[in-house]
Amino acid sequence: MKIKIGILGYGNLGKGVEAAIKKNDDMSLTAVYTRRAPESLKIASKGVEVKSIDVLAQGKEDIDVLIICSGSATDLPEQTPKFASLYNVIDSFDTHARIPEQYAAVDKAAKASGKVGIISCGWDPGMFSLNRVYASSVLPDGKAYTFWGKGVSQGHSDAVRRIEGVKDCRQYTIPVPAALESVRNGENPELTTRQKHTRECFVVAEDGADKSKIEEEIKTMPNYFADYDTTVHFISEEEMKKDHSGLPHGGAVLYSGETSEGTNHIIEYSLKLDSNPEFTGSVLVAFARAAYRLNKEGASGAKTVFDIAPAYLSALSGEELRKNLL
Amino acid sequence: MKIKIGILGYGNLGKGVEAAIKKNDDMSLTAVYTRRAPESLKIASKGVEVKSIDVLAQGKEDIDVLIICSGSATDLPEQTPKFASLYNVIDSFDTHARIPEQYAAVDKAAKASGKVGIISCGWDPGMFSLNRVYASSVLPDGKAYTFWGKGVSQGHSDAVRRIEGVKDCRQYTIPVPAALESVRNGENPELTTRQKHTRECFVVAEDGADKSKIEEEIKTMPNYFADYDTTVHFISEEEMKKDHSGLPHGGAVLYSGETSEGTNHIIEYSLKLDSNPEFTGSVLVAFARAAYRLNKEGASGAKTVFDIAPAYLSALSGEELRKNLL
Repeated sequence: MKIKIGILGYGNLGKGVEAAIKKNDDMSLTAVYTRRAPESLKIASKGVEVKSIDVLAQGKEDIDVLIICSGSATDLPEQTPKFASLYNVIDSFDTHARIPEQYAAVDKAAKASGKVGIISCGWDPGMFSLNRVYASSVLPDGKAYTFWGKGVSQGHSDAVRRIEGVKDCRQYTIPVPAALESVRNGENPELTTRQKHTRECFVVAEDGADKSKIEEEIKTMPNYFADYDTTVHFISEEEMKKDHSGLPHGGAVLYSGETSEGTNHIIEYSLKLDSNPEFTGSVLVAFARAAYRLNKEGASGAKTVFDIAPAYLSALSGEELRKNLL
Repeated sequence: MKIKIGILGYGNLGKGVEAAIKKNDDMSLTAVYTRRAPESLKIASKGVEVKSIDVLAQGKEDIDVLIICSGSATDLPEQTPKFASLYNVIDSFDTHARIPEQYAAVDKAAKASGKVGIISCGWDPGMFSLNRVYASSVLPDGKAYTFWGKGVSQGHSDAVRRIEGVKDCRQYTIPVPAALESVRNGENPELTTRQKHTRECFVVAEDGADKSKIEEEIKTMPNYFADYDTTVHFISEEEMKKDHSGLPHGGAVLYSGETSEGTNHIIEYSLKLDSNPEFTGSVLVAFARAAYRLNKEGASGAKTVFDIAPAYLSALSGEELRKNLL
């Protein structure tokens, strides 16, 4: 009996989850749910139904876990609690400041329904968060550093696309090598925003647009670019297609901690991802397995990656894990 | 109320645990237990009792968790099950082939006593094992590589010390840079033992010893050196003391996995440790906190790092973890 997965939302992340399910023999994709007209949506998996989100809301779908692949800004705060009252659910909610709220809402709904709702799953929040907790638990007298990139930030790319005269943009976030080196050397630097990351934009401008004005607008944009050293390159649509069509990402959590005077340790966890959505989808699928198992054992309520023992994520048995991976 | 820790065995690891406890405000060292005459042992912590292991065996010591800092070869297979029948215990058992046996023996004893026994805790087995499980759960279609070093291998140093004419030795295990690079580049190489690590020995010879004979004996020693490219340096006692008195170690778990045709991801977890025993001791202390909490919740039996949700390791509350580290 395979674990029956439903996907809500078929954007980049939904497609990433779909790809990930194919790599897990104990799971099967039961249906994709969408707000679009179901018949208008072509999905990659053959023989899998596409259904309306309205059907899902009736609460009678035969799925073990619903993986919600919607956006954090407005969809997840509404959808995750709503569907946690009907199914085991999991999301990748990443609005850091609102995590306590999201947790409380999902916890309330999932406790009432007797289901499990895992929030904020992926690589950051997610795998990076796990590494921050493990490292700071082992070395309480220490300091964590998180670096992102080199990779495409979709939020920053979108911000540039909203500038007048911009047809398309791909924004890369890049860690500053000197900052990384300093942390790796155990120097425990205090780093400003500008010292940690640089930003690089590849922009396709409309015909006749004022490029120097676009560049100026990007570099001075508050929150997104003003606090960073930003480089802007204008390229053709063909170059954009050829050189920037992927969604690579990655980054590192570094932790430097002392166990006695002058005795220091460096822990580094890093990711180099060819596809941000496929990797994020793979993390969601592993934790969906945990949601299913925890609920079978009688657990309910909201969980995060911190609340789940690693053995729940693996398709292998406890014996196999101890024998082969311990 | 602090968590009361007892340490059994006051070698390098016991001292590492002692140092780690000082970094955790919610824990206190209650007593050090030893097979030596207690009055002959001077420990670093003031006001902490040193007691005989025989007292411990009476089962009346007021400790929440006993951290067993003995050797894997003969002591832990006897001591961990024995004391799991009296106390919550934790060890760093690292004889990979015998882990299922150790687990079964500790599980039986700890279930009977209603205590928790965590085995095989440290960095490998331990933190490295965790990373193998997380990575292979997220990317089931992939391959793990474990590299050790650069660092001192005490087993290999001891093996050289047993050679006639050798007064002292420090053996460093060193990953081969080209092998690391190949894995980082996603080439998924098949690596022989020789291709993964080199070994470097610093040897103090007895006066008049035949150095070329010692070097030959080292390089051809089965299991320990014959399968590796080994370099031998003869140095003076003063140089040994000055340049090789620490016990640094480290290494990396690399994992390369695919989510769809041609889409690859690299996960790397690496440690650079100034002191192997102090870091291992710090891991043991964090998991001792988990043993205490799990047992308070009613859990009993053997556990490994795979069975413990990360939140149990941290002194922070669930709210604090979600707010600050997720």
